Amino acid sequence: MPAEMRLRRRVLFSETDAAGIVHFANYFRYFEDAEHALWRETGMTIHPDDSDIGWPRVSASCDYHRPLRFEQEFEVTVRIAEIARRTIRYEGSITCDGERVATATWKIACVMNLPDGTMKSAEIPATVAERLEPAHRPSAIEHRPSNTE
Amino acid sequence: MPAEMRLRRRVLFSETDAAGIVHFANYFRYFEDAEHALWRETGMTIHPDDSDIGWPRVSASCDYHRPLRFEQEFEVTVRIAEIARRTIRYEGSITCDGERVATATWKIACVMNLPDGTMKSAEIPATVAERLEPAHRPSAIEHRPSNTE
Amino acid sequence: MPAEMRLRRRVLFSETDAAGIVHFANYFRYFEDAEHALWRETGMTIHPDDSDIGWPRVSASCDYHRPLRFEQEFEVTVRIAEIARRTIRYEGSITCDGERVATATWKIACVMNLPDGTMKSAEIPATVAERLEPAHRPSAIEHRPSNTE
Amino acid sequence: MPAEMRLRRRVLFSETDAAGIVHFANYFRYFEDAEHALWRETGMTIHPDDSDIGWPRVSASCDYHRPLRFEQEFEVTVRIAEIARRTIRYEGSITCDGERVATATWKIACVMNLPDGTMKSAEIPATVAERLEPAHRPSAIEHRPSNTE
Repeated sequence: MPAEMRLRRRVLFSETDAAGIVHFANYFRYFEDAEHALWRETGMTIHPDDSDIGWPRVSASCDYHRPLRFEQEFEVTVRIAEIARRTIRYEGSITCDGERVATATWKIACVMNLPDGTMKSAEIPATVAERLEPAHRPSAIEHRPSNTE
Repeated sequence: MPAEMRLRRRVLFSETDAAGIVHFANYFRYFEDAEHALWRETGMTIHPDDSDIGWPRVSASCDYHRPLRFEQEFEVTVRIAEIARRTIRYEGSITCDGERVATATWKIACVMNLPDGTMKSAEIPATVAERLEPAHRPSAIEHRPSNTE
Repeated sequence: MPAEMRLRRRVLFSETDAAGIVHFANYFRYFEDAEHALWRETGMTIHPDDSDIGWPRVSASCDYHRPLRFEQEFEVTVRIAEIARRTIRYEGSITCDGERVATATWKIACVMNLPDGTMKSAEIPATVAERLEPAHRPSAIEHRPSNTE
Repeated sequence: MPAEMRLRRRVLFSETDAAGIVHFANYFRYFEDAEHALWRETGMTIHPDDSDIGWPRVSASCDYHRPLRFEQEFEVTVRIAEIARRTIRYEGSITCDGERVATATWKIACVMNLPDGTMKSAEIPATVAERLEPAHRPSAIEHRPSNTE
């Protein structure tokens, strides 16, 4: 698989808001879409029907540089910045016509879904880490923890 | 007005995802809802019909501590951490049954919507800054810029 | 419980679209919210954690009479028009400042979620039908099947 | 242009709900996406930046035959069932692996957006009707008005 995942998308009308631009929360859905495409590219799905393992978000942050409007085509790029024992951190960017629209980073944790409905932190299965490794590239930008950690 | 805005909400079914919990992008909508309620509390609306001024997001980040599930009641708290010349930074938290669910920070910029459809950075009108001032409290947590700035 | 459920709500910014009004698909979320509140009013939840029974939509239709805009307050009313052996049909309306905004009807079916992930039509448990009965009122409008049935 | 518009799509995680299937309101977004693609195919956009004309929904209805799950690929087909003087009615269907998932019909109205923020019913411009005409096919199914009209 390639070292990063690139998706092309077009803005849906239902993703815009009354300011005439894509609602800021929808960028997180765009990035998640590309993240899941990256998993598919490795032959895996992040949400198998028959698994007790889940991958909730631990943190997510996005910087918005330019707005996107209805029907604009844009490109989402995602790569894995870090595979730790229990978490994976991604970095992504959105561009439109060669211009930077948004940059983001987010972290998911491996959890075990218990029968009582709660979740328990778990180690990432070795088979999963191995398959994701090709998309793992040291971060191009220096990572500083966000202010709410 | 009070120094912070508190809202009580209940999780809608349409806000959950196949993992059985609130989809992480929806937390940003919860926080935005409380932010807009804070503006209403000052007698203003963040999106008047007859204004050329807009308030797009510059950045948004959230840390997720516990999941929320269908029909759970939770509390969103928002306050203004910083009013700069052209931007406003908020801090917010979500709790459920007294437990910390999520903490977030986000920044909006004042812009002028130009006739050609583009936006231009603008200074926050003095009347707006004055009205928001009572909800402005120095941050309780040290602010470090996110890694994508 | 009352013969119908009434909820008051305010339009969120994230529910609007680039036309400056609430996106039409969100009306279905408003009606579903009131439907679930009606179930809660009977002491039940439509989605218990420990049940194999589910309630997917069979059909949904809405007529739009007037737009809703950001921050407008509106009222959603829902009642049960029909409780059949395997399905329940609702009718709902949305009003704003006493004016009719939308009217809708939708039908849910009782299903058994099988271990292989599929669903099988099931009879509505008697205890559920009994509890919902007080909210059941013969339809005020003549029901004709939609054209795609 | 072809007499109907076909789109292929894959279910996003953010489109599912706690029942493990696509939330029913999202089908209306899928159909709208295909409708807008049909307009683009004619060389038009349904929401130009510099136009006072808008196309709000008058009604929308959907019948759900089978659920869709995360990552399933499906096909959306849309065609114009009727072009009247002031409204356009569409019919659409969603299939997955050759099986019928959903069928829908919806109607949009041509309106003039007035300076005071209200809308006024308007006749469909002749140039628009001409361009859409190739996608107009007499309905394959008998149309009966929905019960809330």
